[in-house]
Amino acid sequence: MTEFIYGLWPIMESLRADRRTADKLVIADGVDDKGLVGEIVNVANEKNIEVSRVQRRIIDDLSNGSNHQGMALRVNDYPYVDVEDILQVADKRGEKPFILILDLLKDPQNVGSLLRVADACGVHGIIMQDRRQVSVTPAVVASSSGAVEHLNVAQVTNLVNAMKKLKENNVWLVGMDVGPNVPALDKTDLDMAIGLVLGSEGDGMRRLVRDTCDFLVTLPMRGLVGSLNVATAGSIALYAAWQARGWEGWAHA
Amino acid sequence: MTEFIYGLWPIMESLRADRRTADKLVIADGVDDKGLVGEIVNVANEKNIEVSRVQRRIIDDLSNGSNHQGMALRVNDYPYVDVEDILQVADKRGEKPFILILDLLKDPQNVGSLLRVADACGVHGIIMQDRRQVSVTPAVVASSSGAVEHLNVAQVTNLVNAMKKLKENNVWLVGMDVGPNVPALDKTDLDMAIGLVLGSEGDGMRRLVRDTCDFLVTLPMRGLVGSLNVATAGSIALYAAWQARGWEGWAHA
Repeated sequence: MTEFIYGLWPIMESLRADRRTADKLVIADGVDDKGLVGEIVNVANEKNIEVSRVQRRIIDDLSNGSNHQGMALRVNDYPYVDVEDILQVADKRGEKPFILILDLLKDPQNVGSLLRVADACGVHGIIMQDRRQVSVTPAVVASSSGAVEHLNVAQVTNLVNAMKKLKENNVWLVGMDVGPNVPALDKTDLDMAIGLVLGSEGDGMRRLVRDTCDFLVTLPMRGLVGSLNVATAGSIALYAAWQARGWEGWAHA
Repeated sequence: MTEFIYGLWPIMESLRADRRTADKLVIADGVDDKGLVGEIVNVANEKNIEVSRVQRRIIDDLSNGSNHQGMALRVNDYPYVDVEDILQVADKRGEKPFILILDLLKDPQNVGSLLRVADACGVHGIIMQDRRQVSVTPAVVASSSGAVEHLNVAQVTNLVNAMKKLKENNVWLVGMDVGPNVPALDKTDLDMAIGLVLGSEGDGMRRLVRDTCDFLVTLPMRGLVGSLNVATAGSIALYAAWQARGWEGWAHA
């Protein structure tokens, strides 16, 4: 199967990552060949990708009316990996596993935004279920600014089974939860092999997913308004974990 | 002047905060009176606010086509405060000032999202310039989930002058910056009286704003994709600062 990814950075990152086969780049009439657009066209030419000019509304259709910045690239499916691959990435880097686990998130914007932050934190991989969870669609690629093109995402049939597999590999599962009896996230040592588990928008983690966690942590909240968006809360938690790990792998650390 | 704020939680929070005068609540035909909608109608009745049913497209117009959830409330202008008021809030709570300073942010979504997090962290107030910076518009109210209705926002003519005033009041100014020579944000003691300064989307802080800061800090970044959105980066920094302050004021701390 093929699909069209859109947006300048998402397309550029996909070409840079070089993990998908791309065969067709379409540019809306009137888009100037300067700057990033020109760079993308150069890379496409080097890779022998067919480049053509089309009417803007064709790209509107290809991107379901999203903000495509006048460009779309036809690529084959997103290259999912296995849970083992993610553990191997950590092993190769000589680091304790740092994994993000998503439990049935529904909003491509939230997932894209979290993947963008996961990339920034050097997360070794992301695990999500294949059903009832938004997969790595072009909308997710776009809202991750293309970061997901470089990331290792495993799609599994059963999230709880994947979590158990991580436990067998000595990964501690840390679930983000709410409630008065859940300790703040900095009260748990996050400088371990961890899988950070985020529940879905509105519902949080499913019961069995929560019960499979080794630790539950919460994001303190002081204001008058209820809760934070899962992408915001998850981003804060990812950075808190990376901070606890001493910004491991940061070029300027 | 009056304006229409829209969305269920934004309207509810505005009524709860009770800082603006509201005189008219409009509900789209077909919206059910149950749940939060019913609660809002009850509160509106108690406050003698005129409640009427209108065609949905009227609310589409009032909200510029935003996601209004079938409801809009006419209120008077947002009640900005002065910088002194913000310092007094900190003083009354017996806490070292914790202030957010925005340097010419343009996107209502980013500003709303940051204000939502500022509320969650118990920030004493937000300072922004009156010109070339998005003000507290209904779009900002909506994207803050109504949190801004409870917050203290000061709009100033000159941001640098306001920053100097904070310095005179022993507030340390911490600017979020990028670059290889800027230390990570946890290398600066954030458990002080601080004003956290965020630069605009794309451009960052203006030169004079940066030069007025006492400390520059950066958010470490490891991935292959450039930078984080200012709302994400600012949210992470606000929580890192609050964590450094021992989650001061958190009910479960």
